[in-house]
Amino acid sequence: MTLLEKTLAEIKPIDASLLDKAQSRLDMLTKPKDSLGRIEEFAKKIVAITGRTRPAISKKLIFTFAGDHGVAAEGVSAFPKEVTAQMVYNFLRGGAGINVLARHAGAEVAVVDIGVDHDFVSADGLISRKVVRGTRNMRLGPAMTREEAVACIEAGITLANEYASEGAIYGTGEMGIANTTPASAIIAALADARPAEVTGKGTGIDDETLKRKIAVIEDALKLNRPSTNDPVDVLAKVGGAEIGGIAGLVLGAAARRIPVVVDGFISTAGALIAYELNPAVRDYVFASHNSVERGHRVMLERMRLRPIVDLDLRLGEGTGAAMAIFLIEAGVKVYNEMATFGDAGVSEKNG
Amino acid sequence: MTLLEKTLAEIKPIDASLLDKAQSRLDMLTKPKDSLGRIEEFAKKIVAITGRTRPAISKKLIFTFAGDHGVAAEGVSAFPKEVTAQMVYNFLRGGAGINVLARHAGAEVAVVDIGVDHDFVSADGLISRKVVRGTRNMRLGPAMTREEAVACIEAGITLANEYASEGAIYGTGEMGIANTTPASAIIAALADARPAEVTGKGTGIDDETLKRKIAVIEDALKLNRPSTNDPVDVLAKVGGAEIGGIAGLVLGAAARRIPVVVDGFISTAGALIAYELNPAVRDYVFASHNSVERGHRVMLERMRLRPIVDLDLRLGEGTGAAMAIFLIEAGVKVYNEMATFGDAGVSEKNG
Repeated sequence: MTLLEKTLAEIKPIDASLLDKAQSRLDMLTKPKDSLGRIEEFAKKIVAITGRTRPAISKKLIFTFAGDHGVAAEGVSAFPKEVTAQMVYNFLRGGAGINVLARHAGAEVAVVDIGVDHDFVSADGLISRKVVRGTRNMRLGPAMTREEAVACIEAGITLANEYASEGAIYGTGEMGIANTTPASAIIAALADARPAEVTGKGTGIDDETLKRKIAVIEDALKLNRPSTNDPVDVLAKVGGAEIGGIAGLVLGAAARRIPVVVDGFISTAGALIAYELNPAVRDYVFASHNSVERGHRVMLERMRLRPIVDLDLRLGEGTGAAMAIFLIEAGVKVYNEMATFGDAGVSEKNG
Repeated sequence: MTLLEKTLAEIKPIDASLLDKAQSRLDMLTKPKDSLGRIEEFAKKIVAITGRTRPAISKKLIFTFAGDHGVAAEGVSAFPKEVTAQMVYNFLRGGAGINVLARHAGAEVAVVDIGVDHDFVSADGLISRKVVRGTRNMRLGPAMTREEAVACIEAGITLANEYASEGAIYGTGEMGIANTTPASAIIAALADARPAEVTGKGTGIDDETLKRKIAVIEDALKLNRPSTNDPVDVLAKVGGAEIGGIAGLVLGAAARRIPVVVDGFISTAGALIAYELNPAVRDYVFASHNSVERGHRVMLERMRLRPIVDLDLRLGEGTGAAMAIFLIEAGVKVYNEMATFGDAGVSEKNG
């Protein structure tokens, strides 16, 4: 049995009775019932995921997977391709958006090279799991072989396993110039949607470039014919290395009952690949935010996940995950630290 | 000139050119333009409020004002009136929702007795600014005299002044059994709305109690006839002491160019009184969240403020403000700490 097969077999739905158990404790706390809304939901979900009736979050870790994309050659992005590697160096020096926001949320950032078309030297702290040196141009053929796609997923699973600890919560993030193109192609393939309905302006392209981007995705889907019922085939033909890594991280987290907070559009493409492989992963996933990218909503609806914040973000890297991790942790603290009506001598509701 | 008059005269609109100045810096940072969405907006607003092109947040302080309401005698709340004082003790011991969430956001809580119908003993840490021992029942007459209403507002202004420091950000919060009733009455009076359109279930009343609550508000407005053009008259006749305190805190913060993060429905009623007294306060206010209470949206639309999070909260105390303060601070850190394209050696956008 491969690591992927083994991991898929290990993922089980959460025990729903734990949600009720957590609700009982929440209802004893000095507040009107359900008055902390989604903050309470987060606590319940963490209890059910971890199986601990007094859960703690002791380690917050955001994995930012970096990979290049052959399809960048089609001029689908506002930024030149070399920015992927340049941003990896920026992550390692602590100067990027994800560094600032992760620090603010008390989270660490694990920067993973899974598919950058660059040889990193003096890159202290980089986690090197390179599967490809950039994908191939999906407009001309499959982005990856099936073996490469599986290797990306298994790299993500391995990271989820290596960094596992009691009280861990994972976040996902990514960097890869042109990667909204594969993300849109993935949801178009899986939901059988028209590319125009699920393709947006990424880092800020103009209307003409958007037209070209849509045409490139249409061409890639026609040429490669990814099988809707085979998520690994979709990932290989029109996906990307970092998207595969994220899919694997989500699968590995679910298998080990570690909550995983999924960032925006590209990260959600990875989570969606994982979900299509085993829908029970949904129980372990928090959708962090509502991206400006139009295809994002289609993905979230498919997984029946409601995003936590809506801040018009479209940066990626894991920035939305960092913000959401703070709010999820708020739920766990409320659950653990608030006084009960009995302890505080506060009268309960009338009647 | 009274303290209130003096403060109103001191409030000036922000200098909009500072927003552009802040935008210029944000556009130099290593991210696609505007890709951190509202997080960037928060940074710009803080720059414009404080007038500092490199702002820092060095003190986060949430004022939780407590007051009782004579109208509780009409059976409009799900909880007995003594809970107001009981919760004040809970705040002082650190066991309430606001304590947990403020700690999580790195904020302090200042608990203010402005109108509780209770003599606090051995209440270490309580800030005593009692103006009334509960308001009078507005269904039978004015909740407060005009003098009492002004005294509540001035108590809030005085706190804003006393705690002012460079780098401060304030949050508002409240505790007062039955206080969604005056909050609904205030927006009904100011927006000339039907009470049924702006009244909700507060801490969790049933449909029958909701009907009674609406009838009580209708009766109170008919009997007291608050003057729509005189916010202090509205506060006196159908408001509450803690709502007046919040109005004053917002006015005082605006006069001193301190950003103020307004919690949910009741806090926003206070901010609305301040706004009606001087609409320029809007520039200094962040609306923290979108409350479940239906009248809240009407208030926010009146002030043209967009809430930061939407987490189905309806607890009050300042809990939404605590969550929002974290996100606003995230913006300031992004603004101050991210590397620029030049520093990081990252290529800028094509063309």
